[in-house]
Amino acid sequence: MCSDSKNGSSIKLVTGSGGYVLEDVPHFSDYIDDLPTYPNPLQSNPAYSVVKQYFVHMDDTVPQKVVVHKNSPRGIHFRRAGPRQKVYFEPDDVHACIVTCGGLCPGLNTVIREIVCGLNYMYGATKILGIDGGYRGFYSKNTVNLTTRVVNDIHKRGGTIIGTSRGGHDTSKIVDSIQDRGINQVYIIGGDGTQKGAAVIYQEIRRRGLKVAVAGIPKTIDNDIPVIDKSFGFDTAVEEAQRAINAAHVEAESCGNCIGLVKLMGRNSGFIAMYATLASRDVDCCLIPESPFYLEGKGGLFEYIEKRLKENGHMVIVVAEGAGQELVSESLQSMNQKDASGNKLLQDIGFWLSQKIKEYFAKPNKLSINLKYIDPTYMIRAIPSNASDNVYCTLLAQSAVHGAMAGYTGFTVGLVNGRQTYLPFERVIEKQNKVVITDRMWARLLSSTNQPSFISTKEVGHSHEECPAQPLDGENYKEEVMANGDISTSVP
Amino acid sequence: MCSDSKNGSSIKLVTGSGGYVLEDVPHFSDYIDDLPTYPNPLQSNPAYSVVKQYFVHMDDTVPQKVVVHKNSPRGIHFRRAGPRQKVYFEPDDVHACIVTCGGLCPGLNTVIREIVCGLNYMYGATKILGIDGGYRGFYSKNTVNLTTRVVNDIHKRGGTIIGTSRGGHDTSKIVDSIQDRGINQVYIIGGDGTQKGAAVIYQEIRRRGLKVAVAGIPKTIDNDIPVIDKSFGFDTAVEEAQRAINAAHVEAESCGNCIGLVKLMGRNSGFIAMYATLASRDVDCCLIPESPFYLEGKGGLFEYIEKRLKENGHMVIVVAEGAGQELVSESLQSMNQKDASGNKLLQDIGFWLSQKIKEYFAKPNKLSINLKYIDPTYMIRAIPSNASDNVYCTLLAQSAVHGAMAGYTGFTVGLVNGRQTYLPFERVIEKQNKVVITDRMWARLLSSTNQPSFISTKEVGHSHEECPAQPLDGENYKEEVMANGDISTSVP
Amino acid sequence: MCSDSKNGSSIKLVTGSGGYVLEDVPHFSDYIDDLPTYPNPLQSNPAYSVVKQYFVHMDDTVPQKVVVHKNSPRGIHFRRAGPRQKVYFEPDDVHACIVTCGGLCPGLNTVIREIVCGLNYMYGATKILGIDGGYRGFYSKNTVNLTTRVVNDIHKRGGTIIGTSRGGHDTSKIVDSIQDRGINQVYIIGGDGTQKGAAVIYQEIRRRGLKVAVAGIPKTIDNDIPVIDKSFGFDTAVEEAQRAINAAHVEAESCGNCIGLVKLMGRNSGFIAMYATLASRDVDCCLIPESPFYLEGKGGLFEYIEKRLKENGHMVIVVAEGAGQELVSESLQSMNQKDASGNKLLQDIGFWLSQKIKEYFAKPNKLSINLKYIDPTYMIRAIPSNASDNVYCTLLAQSAVHGAMAGYTGFTVGLVNGRQTYLPFERVIEKQNKVVITDRMWARLLSSTNQPSFISTKEVGHSHEECPAQPLDGENYKEEVMANGDISTSVP
Amino acid sequence: MCSDSKNGSSIKLVTGSGGYVLEDVPHFSDYIDDLPTYPNPLQSNPAYSVVKQYFVHMDDTVPQKVVVHKNSPRGIHFRRAGPRQKVYFEPDDVHACIVTCGGLCPGLNTVIREIVCGLNYMYGATKILGIDGGYRGFYSKNTVNLTTRVVNDIHKRGGTIIGTSRGGHDTSKIVDSIQDRGINQVYIIGGDGTQKGAAVIYQEIRRRGLKVAVAGIPKTIDNDIPVIDKSFGFDTAVEEAQRAINAAHVEAESCGNCIGLVKLMGRNSGFIAMYATLASRDVDCCLIPESPFYLEGKGGLFEYIEKRLKENGHMVIVVAEGAGQELVSESLQSMNQKDASGNKLLQDIGFWLSQKIKEYFAKPNKLSINLKYIDPTYMIRAIPSNASDNVYCTLLAQSAVHGAMAGYTGFTVGLVNGRQTYLPFERVIEKQNKVVITDRMWARLLSSTNQPSFISTKEVGHSHEECPAQPLDGENYKEEVMANGDISTSVP
Repeated sequence: MCSDSKNGSSIKLVTGSGGYVLEDVPHFSDYIDDLPTYPNPLQSNPAYSVVKQYFVHMDDTVPQKVVVHKNSPRGIHFRRAGPRQKVYFEPDDVHACIVTCGGLCPGLNTVIREIVCGLNYMYGATKILGIDGGYRGFYSKNTVNLTTRVVNDIHKRGGTIIGTSRGGHDTSKIVDSIQDRGINQVYIIGGDGTQKGAAVIYQEIRRRGLKVAVAGIPKTIDNDIPVIDKSFGFDTAVEEAQRAINAAHVEAESCGNCIGLVKLMGRNSGFIAMYATLASRDVDCCLIPESPFYLEGKGGLFEYIEKRLKENGHMVIVVAEGAGQELVSESLQSMNQKDASGNKLLQDIGFWLSQKIKEYFAKPNKLSINLKYIDPTYMIRAIPSNASDNVYCTLLAQSAVHGAMAGYTGFTVGLVNGRQTYLPFERVIEKQNKVVITDRMWARLLSSTNQPSFISTKEVGHSHEECPAQPLDGENYKEEVMANGDISTSVP
Repeated sequence: MCSDSKNGSSIKLVTGSGGYVLEDVPHFSDYIDDLPTYPNPLQSNPAYSVVKQYFVHMDDTVPQKVVVHKNSPRGIHFRRAGPRQKVYFEPDDVHACIVTCGGLCPGLNTVIREIVCGLNYMYGATKILGIDGGYRGFYSKNTVNLTTRVVNDIHKRGGTIIGTSRGGHDTSKIVDSIQDRGINQVYIIGGDGTQKGAAVIYQEIRRRGLKVAVAGIPKTIDNDIPVIDKSFGFDTAVEEAQRAINAAHVEAESCGNCIGLVKLMGRNSGFIAMYATLASRDVDCCLIPESPFYLEGKGGLFEYIEKRLKENGHMVIVVAEGAGQELVSESLQSMNQKDASGNKLLQDIGFWLSQKIKEYFAKPNKLSINLKYIDPTYMIRAIPSNASDNVYCTLLAQSAVHGAMAGYTGFTVGLVNGRQTYLPFERVIEKQNKVVITDRMWARLLSSTNQPSFISTKEVGHSHEECPAQPLDGENYKEEVMANGDISTSVP
Repeated sequence: MCSDSKNGSSIKLVTGSGGYVLEDVPHFSDYIDDLPTYPNPLQSNPAYSVVKQYFVHMDDTVPQKVVVHKNSPRGIHFRRAGPRQKVYFEPDDVHACIVTCGGLCPGLNTVIREIVCGLNYMYGATKILGIDGGYRGFYSKNTVNLTTRVVNDIHKRGGTIIGTSRGGHDTSKIVDSIQDRGINQVYIIGGDGTQKGAAVIYQEIRRRGLKVAVAGIPKTIDNDIPVIDKSFGFDTAVEEAQRAINAAHVEAESCGNCIGLVKLMGRNSGFIAMYATLASRDVDCCLIPESPFYLEGKGGLFEYIEKRLKENGHMVIVVAEGAGQELVSESLQSMNQKDASGNKLLQDIGFWLSQKIKEYFAKPNKLSINLKYIDPTYMIRAIPSNASDNVYCTLLAQSAVHGAMAGYTGFTVGLVNGRQTYLPFERVIEKQNKVVITDRMWARLLSSTNQPSFISTKEVGHSHEECPAQPLDGENYKEEVMANGDISTSVP
Repeated sequence: MCSDSKNGSSIKLVTGSGGYVLEDVPHFSDYIDDLPTYPNPLQSNPAYSVVKQYFVHMDDTVPQKVVVHKNSPRGIHFRRAGPRQKVYFEPDDVHACIVTCGGLCPGLNTVIREIVCGLNYMYGATKILGIDGGYRGFYSKNTVNLTTRVVNDIHKRGGTIIGTSRGGHDTSKIVDSIQDRGINQVYIIGGDGTQKGAAVIYQEIRRRGLKVAVAGIPKTIDNDIPVIDKSFGFDTAVEEAQRAINAAHVEAESCGNCIGLVKLMGRNSGFIAMYATLASRDVDCCLIPESPFYLEGKGGLFEYIEKRLKENGHMVIVVAEGAGQELVSESLQSMNQKDASGNKLLQDIGFWLSQKIKEYFAKPNKLSINLKYIDPTYMIRAIPSNASDNVYCTLLAQSAVHGAMAGYTGFTVGLVNGRQTYLPFERVIEKQNKVVITDRMWARLLSSTNQPSFISTKEVGHSHEECPAQPLDGENYKEEVMANGDISTSVP
C-alpha cells in the first residue's frame, strides 16, 4: 500500500497483478491508533438472519472500466460499499448529523429518511440531528432532531425537510460546531462545491485528530458528478422534463410557424437536456454547454430553424441553461452600457435566445413566427423522487451509514457500474462529468433530431488534442475514460 | 477459439490471460462462407460525423462480474454491442420483420419504434414488416408495413401496435414464412419462452444455411431474465405499482383493523413486489415466490397480521402472483371435488389469500377485520414506458440493429453492468433470474417491513446446497452468478 | 307557513304566488323558545371587511327546476345556504364534532379540514372533536381533537383521517354520548344510509329538546343522492376511472379478439360508469343497474360482443357493480347447491360476467377470445380529491358551518342548480338518484358506444306508467323530478 | 314577440307573466321566408329509440337568476339548447366548417371531435371542413377534411388539430369564402374577441340573406365569459395549476426566507388564480386584476411579505397575469428612456414583481431573501382536458350542432345554471366576467390566505357607484346580476 503523493493527493493506492489498482478511501485507523471495534449489530438483526454473507468481503472492489479487451490491464478499482464485520461505534455512542446544501433535487428527503432509518433500524443509533439550511446552519441555527417518526413520510414530498442553502462554508466554525456538539458522524448531501467543502471539513477533522466520520452523498440534478453511473434524482428530473417538452410540442403544433422553446437544467453539462430529448422524440434541436453553437450564417441555428419551419410548420428546441454562454456574454458586451440592471436577466440563455430568434424573424422578408418559451426548472426540482430514485437513494444512504459505522471517513458513496462503492473525495470533485460530443450517445441524439452539429471536423480534430480520452457509448449515462494509452498509464 | 461442446451448447468460447473467458455469439461467417461485406453507412451519416470512434472495437468485451478481488480470475465476458466497421447487408437488401410475443410490458412500442427508426435513419433500410399478433402471425395473418411515419408517436402509447399472443410457435412454418417472404432480419421481442423459440428458429435457419439474422430483445415485466441488469419496462412497472400500494394504504388507514392487500406481477420471481415495497415504505409484509411462507402457527402470517393490527390498526400486504403457490395447491387438493369450475379462480393467490385471511378472522374471538384486495396487474402492464425506460428501449433496439447489420445472429441484446452486450441465447434461457433471499437486498426489505422471515436457519442451510451461487447485494437488480474459480471459493 | 303533515313529514312548507313553494329546513326556534342570538362574528372579520353584503338575505331561495316555460308554475324551492346576520352560538360555546361513515370517497379529508377551518377562522370556534371510525365511534372509542394544525395538509391525502365504518348506528347511545360530552354541533358526512341515521339522531335530539345542531354533508361516490347537482368526489372518481378504461383499451387492442372489462362503482346507479364512458370514448358497451340487459339471443350482449370482435378485433366493456344483479341471482339459484361458500364472490358482476363471457366463447365454433378484467374500485376511492372537488368540498363544509351557527338543524347541504342550499333530510333520503335511461344523456351514451339498448319500445312504454317524471337532458349530472303540478302537466 | 331596438341590439325579447323575459336567439326564419324543414333524423336513430322525449320542448327556457325571493319578478330567461322536431338541413346538404381562434385551452380538440361526431352520428352529415389556423385560414389557407376517423383520438391530445391564431378577421373575405365554398354551418370556437367577430360574420351573412348558420362555442381559459356558469377547460387549468403552486411551496419551504411566486393566466379576470388558490391552500397571497394592490407602505405587499417571512420563514404568492398592470405602467414611465426594447418584457407582471421584491429586500437592513419564480402558463394551456371537461365539451358541441340543424343562427352555446342554452352573441360579448371582490367567494379567499385586502372601505363604497349590481356568492363560478333594483328593471 502506498499513498499517491503527487499533488498532495490523499488517495490511498493499492496495486495488484495485471495492472490492478485500488483507489482506497481514508479510515480512522489511518490517523488514530488503537481504536476499539465492536461486532456489527446486524449479525443479530432478525431481518438479516437469513443473509448468508452478512458482510462485504474486505477485498471486494469494483473496476472503474468495464469495457475491456482480452489482454488489457485491469486498471482502477474502488472499494465496494456495504456492512463490515467490525464497527467503530457502539449504538449509543453514535451522534450523527445530516446537512443538505445547494439547490433542490428529487430524492433529498428519501436520502435523509434512509440515513435516519438505516442508523436506527440497522445499528440501533438514535441520536441524529438535522442541520438547518445548509452549511451555515452548523453555526448559525438550531438543529432539528430527526427520529424515524419525523422522517416516516417525507420521501413522498419534494424538497428537503431540513432546508438547504448555497455557500455558508466556514470550515473552522463548522468543525468547531461538530466538536462542541459532540457529533461523530457527518453526512453531507450536496453537489461538487459541497463535496469540496466536505473534503476540507474532513481534512480539518483529521488535522485535529477527531474520531468523526465524514461521508458525502453526491447530489446534482445535472448528473455532472464524474465516475458514478448517475446521480440520484436524475431519472425523476428527466421524466418530469417530458411534461414541458410535451407542452412545447402541443403549443408549437397548434399555431403557425411556431417554435416551442424549453430551458432545462444543466449549468455545465447537458445530460438532462440530452436524455429528455432522447426520451421524448418530439425535439428538433437540443443545445447543450458541451456543444458550442452559433446563430447566424450557414450551418447556424437560424438557418436550421427556417428550414424546419418551412418543412414542418413548427419545431421544438431544448436548451440547457449553460448552453451558449459565450454567445450571451459577447452579446452583452456589445450592448454593455444599455442595461446595467437588466444584466442578470439577459444571462438567462432561454430568455436571451427567445429574444434573438424573435429579432431575427422580425426582419423584413422573414417568416412571421410565434415563440413559446417554457422554463420548468423549479417544477422539476421540487417534485418527489420516483420509485426508481427512491430505491437508489435508499441504497446510497445505507452505503454511507455502513461506511461511517465501519470507520471509513473522507469518502463519498457512489454507484459504479451498478455497484455501491466508496470513492475518495478527490475523484468526484476533481472535474465535472460532461456529455462527450464525440461519443455515440450524442450522435444518437443528433440522429434523432436531425439538427446540425454546429461543428466542423477540423474543430473536432482540434479538441482531440485536449481530450485524449477514448469516447465510448455512454449508455450508462457517463463518460468513460480508458483504453489504449488509458488512464492506468497515469498511475505510477 | 473453441466451441463449448459440453451439453451440445453452441456458445463460442474465447479464452485469455488471467482467467479471461469470452462467451461469444454466432455470426453468419460461422456457417456461410465468403459473404460480401460493405462499409457501414454510419460513416457518412452527418449525425455521426463528429463521432471520433464510429465503431465498437472488435475486442471490446464486458465482464459478467464486477465485484472482484485484487487477485481474482477475470471470469466470463460478453461481446460489447454497437456498430461495426463492416456490415453484411446493403440498405436495399434489408428485409426485416419484428414480432412481439407474450404479455404486455411498458416499452414494447418504443422498442418497435426504435428498430424501425434505427434501421431507417442509421442504415437506410426501409423494408420492415410487423408480424401481427405474435409467433402465429408469421403463418396465419397478414403483415403490417412499419414505416417511420407509422411508428412516430407510438412510444407514447402502452401496449404493442403489432399485437401479441402467447404460444403459436411452429418452427418450420415460421422459418418457411421467413424464407418465402424473403425476410433476412428477424427481431423477436419476448420473454424466456419466446427467446427459447427464437433459439430454435435460429438453429433451423442455420440448418437451412440461410443468411437471416435472428436477434432477440428480452422482454419480461417480472425482471426474471438472468445475466442482464434489468429488463425494460421494469422501472415503469415498479413506479406504477406505487399507486396501488398507496390506495391500499389509504384504504387500510381509514377503517378499523383493515388490511390492504395488493397483488403484483411476478410468476416466478418477486422483483416487482420487492422493489415496489422498498420504494413505497408503506408495506408491512411482502410475499414472493422465492420465500416460502405459511399461514398458521408461530411465525406464520396470521400471527403477524394479528400483531400488526393490534399495534397499528391497519396493515398493507404485497403479494407477488407466484407466491405461495404450494399453499394454494395443497388447499385445492383438500377441497378438490367441490370446485371443478372454480378451479382457475382459486389459483389466484391474491384472491385465495384474501379468503383465507377472512376465514381466519371470522373465527370466534378473533378481531373483526376489513380486507381490501387490489389487483392492478393490467393497469400496470398497459401504461406507456417512462422516460428512463424510453431511453433504455432505444439503446436495446439500436444494439439489436447494429448486431444484425454486422452479421451476428442467434443472440439477444442485454445490458450487463451498464453496458450494451450481445448474449448467446443459452445464457438468457437456461434459467430464470430470481430474488436471492439470502442476499442483502431481501434483508433490506425485511428490515424495512419488519415482517417475519418465515424461514429457519436450517432451511437456509439446506437451500444452500442447491444454489451454490454466492449471494451479493443485488443493488443492480440482479443475482450474480459467479463463474468457475469464482470468488465464492475464497469464502470458507 | 305550514307543515306538510302528509306522511308525517317534518318538512316545513312556505307557499307564494305563481305556484311558489319553499321546502324549508328545521330551526332551533321550532322547538326551543327564547334562545339568545349574537351578531355574526364575520362582521368584524377583516377578510370579509370588503364584502358588501355579508349575509344571505333571509328570503333567498333556489328553485329545484330551472327548465321553465313562460307560464309554468314556479314549483319547489330550497333555502339558500350561507351566513346569517344572527348566530345562535358564541365562539366559546361551540362544541362541535365530525363523523365520517360508509365507504371512502375523494374529498372526505377536505370536508373535514374545511369544517375545522371554517369554524375556527370564520367563527372563532376551536372545540372540535373527530369521532373515530364512524357512528360506533360515538360510544365505543376515544375522540380525536381536530385543530387547524392537525388538518392543515390532509386535503392532499386520500381517505379520512378520522376513520370510517359502516353501520354502528345506535340512536340512543349516540345521542347520550352527544349529550354527555356536551357536544352542540354534529357534522355527519355519509351516504343515504348515514343521512337516514342523521335524521333519526336529529329527531331524538329534538325530542329531548336539546340545542344541538345536526348537519349532514351527503357523501356518495356513486352520485346517487337525489335533488343535488352532484356529490363531492364524483368528478375525481370519473377522472381516475379513465386510467382503468385506458388500460383495458390498450390490453384489448394489443391482443387478438380481446375484451377489456372494467368494473366501476355504482351499486344502484350507473353515473360513474356513464360519465367515465362518455369522457373516455374508448368504450364499446356500458352496463348500468338502471338498464337491464341480457346475455343470450338476438339483441343480447353475446351477439353484440361477437359483432364488435368481428368488426374491430377488440372491445371495451364498462360495467357498474350493481348492473345485471337479477341475472347473477338467477344464475346463482340454478347452481345453488354447488357453492355455499363461493356465494359472495359470484355476486361480483364483473367476475361473474367475465366467467359467462369466457364460457360462451369456449363453446365449439366460437371465436377464441381473451378477456382482461380490471377492478379499479379501491384505487379510485382512495385518491385525494382534485382541484374542482377541493373547492366544492370547501363550499359544502362552509355552508354546513354557516347553517349550524345560524341555528338551523336537521338539514343537509347540497348544491342545487349551482347554488348552495339547505335541504330537509327527507329530500335526500326518500329515494336514490338514478340514471334515467329514457333521457338524452343515456341516448348520448348509446350513440357514442353504438351498443344495443337491450330494451324494446314496449318495455319503455310500460316503464312510463311507473315513472311519470318528465325526462330532461340531465346535463347537470342529474335526473330532475318534477313536482306535483309539475311542468309536464302543463305540456299538452 | 318584439325586438329590442334600443342600441340597435338584435336580441329578440319575449315577455310573460310575473316579469318573465326571454332573450331569444336569431333564426333563419327571421330573414328567410318559406324554408323547407325536415323531420329530425334522431327520430330514427336507434340510440335514441328509448328516449321518450326526443326533442326539447319549444317553450323550454332557463332563468338567468336562480336565487329568488318568494315574490321576486322572474327576470331574464334563455332558450334551452337541444334537438328540435324539425331541422332545416338534409344530411347531404350540410356543409359545415369549424374554426378555432386565439390561445390554446384544454378541450379544443374535444369540441372539434364532438362537432364532427355529432353531425355525423346524430344527423348523418359528413361534409365537415377544418379551417386551418384561425380566421385567416378562411381566405389564406387550404382546409382540412374532418372525418370521424381523423378526430377519433384527438380528445386525448392538447392543443387544436386545426391550428389557431389571433386576429386575421376580415369579414368580407371570410363571408366570401363561406359563400364560395358553399359552407352553410359555421362553428366558431374562441374567446370574446372571436365571438365579436362571429357576431359580425353573422350580421354580414344575414345582410346577404344566406342560409348559413353561425354558431359560437365560447372558449376562454380565463373563465371571463359572462352569463355562463364556467368556460370549458377551466377545471383542467385549475387542476394543472396545482403543480406549479406545489412546486413553489416546496421550493419556498426548503430554503430560508424564500418566496415562491407563481404567475397564472388571467388577463382581465382572476378566476384561475382565485380557484387555484382556494383548491391548494398553500398560498399566502393571491393577486388578481380585479383587486388593485400596492407595494410600499402600510398595508402594502412588502409589509405583508416581511410579516409572513418573519412568522413562517417562507411564503407562496400567486399572481394573475393581468394583476397590477397600473403599477407596471407607472414604473415603466419613470424609467422610460432606458428600455425601448425591454418594454414588452417588463410588462410581465410576474417578472416585474420578482424584480421589485428582490430590489426591496436588497436594501440595507432587510431580510436576505430567495425568490423562485414559476410561469407555468404554456404547460397549463397545452394539456388535454380532464374527464369533467371532456363531458362538458361534448355537451357544448352537441348543443351547437342541434342549434344549427334547427335553423338557429347568430348564437353561442353556454351552460346557464347547469343547463345548456342558446345565448344571443350580445350577451357574451358585451362585457367580461370578473371576480367580484365585494363578494363572498373573494372573502373566502382572503380568509384562507390571510392576506391584506389592499383596499379601504371607502374605495369599495366608491366602486359601488359604478357597479350597481348586487354581488352574490358566486359559488357557481360567476357573478350574478339580480335582485332589488335588479337588471330586469332595465328591460322595458
